Amino acid sequence: MKGVKELGERKIIDIILSQLEPMPIMPIPFGDDASAIDIGSGKLAVIKTDMLVGKTDVPPKMILWQAARKAVVMNISDLAAKGVKPIALLASVGIPRGLRKQDIEQIGEGLNKGAREYDAYILGGDTNEASDLVISCAALGIGEKRRLMLRSGAKPGDIVAVTGPFGKTAAGLKILLQNLSTPLGIRKKFMDSVLMPRARLNEGLTLAQTGAVTASIDSSDGLAWSLHEISRASQVGFLIDGFPIAEEAKQLAKMYKLDPVELCLYGGEEYELVVTVKPRLWRRVRDKVSLIKIGRVTREKRLVLKLGKKAGPIESRGWEHFKTSLSKS
Amino acid sequence: MKGVKELGERKIIDIILSQLEPMPIMPIPFGDDASAIDIGSGKLAVIKTDMLVGKTDVPPKMILWQAARKAVVMNISDLAAKGVKPIALLASVGIPRGLRKQDIEQIGEGLNKGAREYDAYILGGDTNEASDLVISCAALGIGEKRRLMLRSGAKPGDIVAVTGPFGKTAAGLKILLQNLSTPLGIRKKFMDSVLMPRARLNEGLTLAQTGAVTASIDSSDGLAWSLHEISRASQVGFLIDGFPIAEEAKQLAKMYKLDPVELCLYGGEEYELVVTVKPRLWRRVRDKVSLIKIGRVTREKRLVLKLGKKAGPIESRGWEHFKTSLSKS
Repeated sequence: MKGVKELGERKIIDIILSQLEPMPIMPIPFGDDASAIDIGSGKLAVIKTDMLVGKTDVPPKMILWQAARKAVVMNISDLAAKGVKPIALLASVGIPRGLRKQDIEQIGEGLNKGAREYDAYILGGDTNEASDLVISCAALGIGEKRRLMLRSGAKPGDIVAVTGPFGKTAAGLKILLQNLSTPLGIRKKFMDSVLMPRARLNEGLTLAQTGAVTASIDSSDGLAWSLHEISRASQVGFLIDGFPIAEEAKQLAKMYKLDPVELCLYGGEEYELVVTVKPRLWRRVRDKVSLIKIGRVTREKRLVLKLGKKAGPIESRGWEHFKTSLSKS
Repeated sequence: MKGVKELGERKIIDIILSQLEPMPIMPIPFGDDASAIDIGSGKLAVIKTDMLVGKTDVPPKMILWQAARKAVVMNISDLAAKGVKPIALLASVGIPRGLRKQDIEQIGEGLNKGAREYDAYILGGDTNEASDLVISCAALGIGEKRRLMLRSGAKPGDIVAVTGPFGKTAAGLKILLQNLSTPLGIRKKFMDSVLMPRARLNEGLTLAQTGAVTASIDSSDGLAWSLHEISRASQVGFLIDGFPIAEEAKQLAKMYKLDPVELCLYGGEEYELVVTVKPRLWRRVRDKVSLIKIGRVTREKRLVLKLGKKAGPIESRGWEHFKTSLSKS
């Protein structure tokens, strides 16, 4: 019988989902970034829960309020990817015995900061004793049914785009875990990317209003993984010929002979949105949201990365709990 | 600087709440059983999150699917206390490394069972690696603003009532933790109470419809604690002269010379509703919901238990994480 390490997070989620009776009307299917119920008048109540665990989600140097803030941002990012504005969040906090009053204050402060940055509020929650720091947030927003962006609508010919470049977080984690030295100027950018992730909420809300987006996902498990998720949900493939690596990540890769493809595609813990856009509306969308075009949706269900004259498959892997680790080992 | 054990759960919650900027319009105030946002047309989206942690919330003999079911029921109970029907839940599951495929299946099964018993559905969630089993559920329901039952509306003269007798869970935990022998017939009732807690959802929904309930809370932290919470929120006191102990708990107390007051008032992990009712509507309410009258709301902010001719204070204590333990020590 397989243990959880062999199964990995995706398989575990599949096993749990296989036990669940689906709700007769599900505006967002199982396995998408968020869930929803129909509340009438064309509106949906959209909810999301995502859990931050100290051991696996809090990198070295991240202090408590940053961890609490990240727990909020992770959830807001998922609503952003669906084009839904978060209004309120709850936080269940599992607290290890060693923490003190000032640590708890930091947790409260970080939760509040994370929510207020996106004009949302923390309404309440629950605390428990736990062996490890655990912050599980639930986010709630009200969305318009016809504006909802799912993972499943990508069509061959659609343009694939992202809201920003990739690789800074993966590079930042490497710097932290392996204690690499870097020029001060770019170091700060890497650290910000790791310690102060930002959800692309304005972008998500604006993109939803354009009506031009056919599929959307956030990239918290990495760009490659996000593309594979859209591929699975939409039954399409991708030809990625624009390689969206961040300038700073490119520099670090050069400096330490790291694989830029690895940093850009397979890192995870980044919060850009990955979207597919109707080609005829591309210019209109570009006028409203700053997007980087990275390729096209293809009919053939293969995911191909083309770098200059070389082409190769994009692997179905990324950040995965139980399999990926934030520790040095 | 105080550690979390000295602070206790209530103080920790207060510290976190002190860091939060309140939402300008909060239909349910901080610290009540659930939280809500106004969605117009007299409706509220009501949410709740409550976290189950293996070490502190899963008693011996409770198997995994029961633990997962309990994590759902805990949340449903809070919505029931507000008079709101849960529609959908999410579950964030922290999984220790030692679990295997069949364990994960059990977790999924328990989540589904817990939700379906109350006609709700699990819509999704998140899994993580964690040192201890952690199941954090978020429940969502749509409620009518004018029917909402808060903790804060009790008035002097109101009747205090509960939806069932108390003490079976505390007795059951004692039996499990100290391995006490009990007649088989009543043992099963104790075990059911501990392993298969039930939320009083029908009662809560019916009570809300009567418009007769002035305050309501669930009793997951114990009867005494629940009364103190209503007392604090409503600025009233209580004279409790009907002692709602379960027959089986009484028997066990006699058999092992246990304090029946302790079992009935200070046990916790029970899910009865504790409500205050307008006296002129009492009979109408009683016709619709089976309630046990236990006393009256008083103007003076004291909580008094009257047993025959003896009267004494009801202490402000109950089940509390960090301070109360499910282990034998």
